Amino acid sequence: FSTPVTIRTTSILSVAVEVPEASKINTLIDLDAEKVVNMEKLDAGKKAVYCRCWKSGTFPLCDGNHVAHNKATGDNVGPLIVTAAKAE
Amino acid sequence: FSTPVTIRTTSILSVAVEVPEASKINTLIDLDAEKVVNMEKLDAGKKAVYCRCWKSGTFPLCDGNHVAHNKATGDNVGPLIVTAAKAE
Repeated sequence: FSTPVTIRTTSILSVAVEVPEASKINTLIDLDAEKVVNMEKLDAGKKAVYCRCWKSGTFPLCDGNHVAHNKATGDNVGPLIVTAAKAE
Repeated sequence: FSTPVTIRTTSILSVAVEVPEASKINTLIDLDAEKVVNMEKLDAGKKAVYCRCWKSGTFPLCDGNHVAHNKATGDNVGPLIVTAAKAE
């Protein structure tokens, strides 16, 4: 399956292809949702690792799939790690 | 600036263009880093809104830039909202 692109032929020998500068980030998660916003609660002293590559099978949590994404695209995205302070 | 793509001409009339299925998500943030991982601490009872579109000017926090990204690409990405439980 290829992504449809606009093709303008300037001459038989050269083809100008306009690939959209910015493309979609999310091609897997809740595609029917208008906007995917997740609200998470962390108990005191707890830590969670959250996905930011939109490829995780355990979204919104990270499952390491950013490694495969980075390898396939040359990207450098990684997760967000949040720790809730311990109760004093 | 266009993204380089592989072009295979099958015949003068039709041009097969292979656009990579997955493209980079991060085109702005710490591009020299091997992998961008953020570690954040949340005080008890506090809430933070984190960016997942990689376009925020206040990364890793959200600044609303996902709205412009979604409009430009038809994407549906939104932030992650984390709340640290109140100390009991």
